[in-house]
Amino acid sequence: MSKYDQLKKEAYDANMQLPKLGLVLFTFGNVSVVDRANQVFAIKPSGVPYEELSPEKMVIVDFDANVIEGALRPSSDTKTHAVLYKHWTSIGSIVHTHSTYATAWAQAQRDIPIFGTTHADHTTAFIPCAPPMSDEMIKGDYETETGFQILNCFKEKALDPVETEMMLVGNHAPFTWGKNAHKAVYNAAVLEEVARMAYLTLQINPQAPVLKDALIKKHFERKHGPDSYYGQ
Amino acid sequence: MSKYDQLKKEAYDANMQLPKLGLVLFTFGNVSVVDRANQVFAIKPSGVPYEELSPEKMVIVDFDANVIEGALRPSSDTKTHAVLYKHWTSIGSIVHTHSTYATAWAQAQRDIPIFGTTHADHTTAFIPCAPPMSDEMIKGDYETETGFQILNCFKEKALDPVETEMMLVGNHAPFTWGKNAHKAVYNAAVLEEVARMAYLTLQINPQAPVLKDALIKKHFERKHGPDSYYGQ
Amino acid sequence: MSKYDQLKKEAYDANMQLPKLGLVLFTFGNVSVVDRANQVFAIKPSGVPYEELSPEKMVIVDFDANVIEGALRPSSDTKTHAVLYKHWTSIGSIVHTHSTYATAWAQAQRDIPIFGTTHADHTTAFIPCAPPMSDEMIKGDYETETGFQILNCFKEKALDPVETEMMLVGNHAPFTWGKNAHKAVYNAAVLEEVARMAYLTLQINPQAPVLKDALIKKHFERKHGPDSYYGQ
Amino acid sequence: MSKYDQLKKEAYDANMQLPKLGLVLFTFGNVSVVDRANQVFAIKPSGVPYEELSPEKMVIVDFDANVIEGALRPSSDTKTHAVLYKHWTSIGSIVHTHSTYATAWAQAQRDIPIFGTTHADHTTAFIPCAPPMSDEMIKGDYETETGFQILNCFKEKALDPVETEMMLVGNHAPFTWGKNAHKAVYNAAVLEEVARMAYLTLQINPQAPVLKDALIKKHFERKHGPDSYYGQ
Repeated sequence: MSKYDQLKKEAYDANMQLPKLGLVLFTFGNVSVVDRANQVFAIKPSGVPYEELSPEKMVIVDFDANVIEGALRPSSDTKTHAVLYKHWTSIGSIVHTHSTYATAWAQAQRDIPIFGTTHADHTTAFIPCAPPMSDEMIKGDYETETGFQILNCFKEKALDPVETEMMLVGNHAPFTWGKNAHKAVYNAAVLEEVARMAYLTLQINPQAPVLKDALIKKHFERKHGPDSYYGQ
Repeated sequence: MSKYDQLKKEAYDANMQLPKLGLVLFTFGNVSVVDRANQVFAIKPSGVPYEELSPEKMVIVDFDANVIEGALRPSSDTKTHAVLYKHWTSIGSIVHTHSTYATAWAQAQRDIPIFGTTHADHTTAFIPCAPPMSDEMIKGDYETETGFQILNCFKEKALDPVETEMMLVGNHAPFTWGKNAHKAVYNAAVLEEVARMAYLTLQINPQAPVLKDALIKKHFERKHGPDSYYGQ
Repeated sequence: MSKYDQLKKEAYDANMQLPKLGLVLFTFGNVSVVDRANQVFAIKPSGVPYEELSPEKMVIVDFDANVIEGALRPSSDTKTHAVLYKHWTSIGSIVHTHSTYATAWAQAQRDIPIFGTTHADHTTAFIPCAPPMSDEMIKGDYETETGFQILNCFKEKALDPVETEMMLVGNHAPFTWGKNAHKAVYNAAVLEEVARMAYLTLQINPQAPVLKDALIKKHFERKHGPDSYYGQ
Repeated sequence: MSKYDQLKKEAYDANMQLPKLGLVLFTFGNVSVVDRANQVFAIKPSGVPYEELSPEKMVIVDFDANVIEGALRPSSDTKTHAVLYKHWTSIGSIVHTHSTYATAWAQAQRDIPIFGTTHADHTTAFIPCAPPMSDEMIKGDYETETGFQILNCFKEKALDPVETEMMLVGNHAPFTWGKNAHKAVYNAAVLEEVARMAYLTLQINPQAPVLKDALIKKHFERKHGPDSYYGQ
């Protein structure tokens, strides 16, 4: 028994959604879930196949990436998660995958343009792609610097992590987040589909225009504005 | 017990076909089925995951989109369905999805050219893509205007909704319909496949010619003309 | 009981392979199997969904496309099958699908170039694409003329239907065949994969060279020559 | 009972992973596993469908490709495996597939550029594509020469088979290997995904830059260097 059993269970359930949604090959992904009261988060252990995971194997880590509880080494991306939880105080869960289409956009080092309402239902912005890091950042504390690269990308583009819950790390792969694990995993699947549709759109019409401002605003407010009328 | 139990069951069964056919991610789609005698239709509730649906959760709505029966809020696209049922008096069911390839063509704002007999078996026309709406329409009663955008697109292109049972709303996604729910869902899957084949055709041969008139006519009449000889 | 029970069973089993192999959407395909002694073949009934098929529903037809046995109308493509059985006396089974990638090449009206050994393992030739028919042929006995279009395509390109067991009807879709139903269905799946690989090859390198003659010959003979050493 | 029962079981299990991972159509692939003490390896029999395989059907072959034990003919690619085991003394298992995207790159005769960390996690090099063989090599002992073509490709590019465990034979298809069967099969799946991502990257941005040296080094060392910190 541990006071983090519920948190571990949530992190376990969310991690197990990734292979079900076709978002990971082997161990190429991880989900963490935060406990704001105790300033810790539960995250997948490093390199453990999904079929061998169990709630007990989740690792509890604080916001400086120190292991608080757990027999296994946490995900190699743990420091990136820690930086994001520390600085973005409203997010409840983070997902990292190497899902195919989102990763291809990250490798192409391009923001994903907003071509349709599927995209606008989730954010009014292009999905931002952070540029590759400087050699100093890479050679230094790489995973911590990846976290700062994400923070800087949002600062420079004046994006709000509550309104845009997904992004690409250039040459690497996507990160998504949300108020809870369900939303963060949902966003990972939505990003992959938006990335796929944008890719196809450009293949069909390289001059495809981006969405009109009025339509961007309308669709986002339908789902997220004060007068939203989507859902129950 | 309700006099709409059978209608709700039909709408439920048809909605459940969408994830089975790979046409929806999460809640990105909905099916409605009409009861012409009572001037109402049953439609999916808004934002409810498919695995949580049941026949009782379907919402009964009249042609002005007023809820007649049901505890849940109907799909946010309900007014679009209502406009189509009101004006196209021969259709029995409507499907809206964000299926990947059809949505990519909608985002590319291009009609789908008729490149082969798979397409001609279902309509003699290019699959029309309605242009994005004016800002006034978007800011106004958006979903109702979407219905009129569809009607206007068919009027301007002189298309008959009985002969062409599928279309794309530019920047948004596809709508299909049919005399009953089975046919409307069938059309949604056919449109996705036709969209995918047309995309691939253009990648293989950007100068691919469209189908000859004689072949268009032949294939459509094989399935739909007075001397049709397809099926039992 | 009928003397064609075994033939019907073979045709049924082969038809049921098409959806399992992902080669058909709904009823977009059919398999026939010949009985050379009795000069008839068993073929799928027209427009019947695969999940409703049974061996008894197969239709027995002669080489002039007359129904010999069976309560249902045979596939609308029956006359095409009949022409091929009549003129190509060594083939034992025919498959017609609208499989996605092969159909895209047919719509693009391009032969599939021989880019690799996956292709060469099955034929030394480009997969031929017959040109669209003349308006007279289309308006006439269309399905019979489709059969002649296939025969003419092989004659003009000096291809042997025993060595090349697959082709594309321009603007329409693929036909494959073989000495028996197993081989004909196998060829349908191989063609779809070869078509997909050739499409991707051209996307990666539009100047991709075709296979060297020595390699074409080597791979085909490994599997099919007098000194073949593939298989048991 | 045979002293190779365990080896056969390992080879059988590994072969059965190929269809599960979507890496083979029909019999288009094979896995072998080596026993260094006895200088033999177990390999799939030629042309036997995966569903009919069993551990007993695996064939035991020495490094000159002589059958040591087994009633069936070994894979037609056996001599290629033999050459690699003989010359690369540290590898424990070899996988050959015709997986779609990797084969498309092989047909395009292009090395796969290193576009992202998914690739760099597994090798610091472009995935090499060996050029097509000379006509003499093809007409000679083809499968043995294929092995030498692979060895020469690594020699010319100064690649180490312990650091780069995957490659493409031009116009043919991929080969991967590893210290054991699990790793070799894992590499076959990783290569297919890396090939797919690289293809998509070039479609999205034909000028996509390759990964910075610092990032290549960092990611590879995270997983494989002396201070690696990935996994348990």
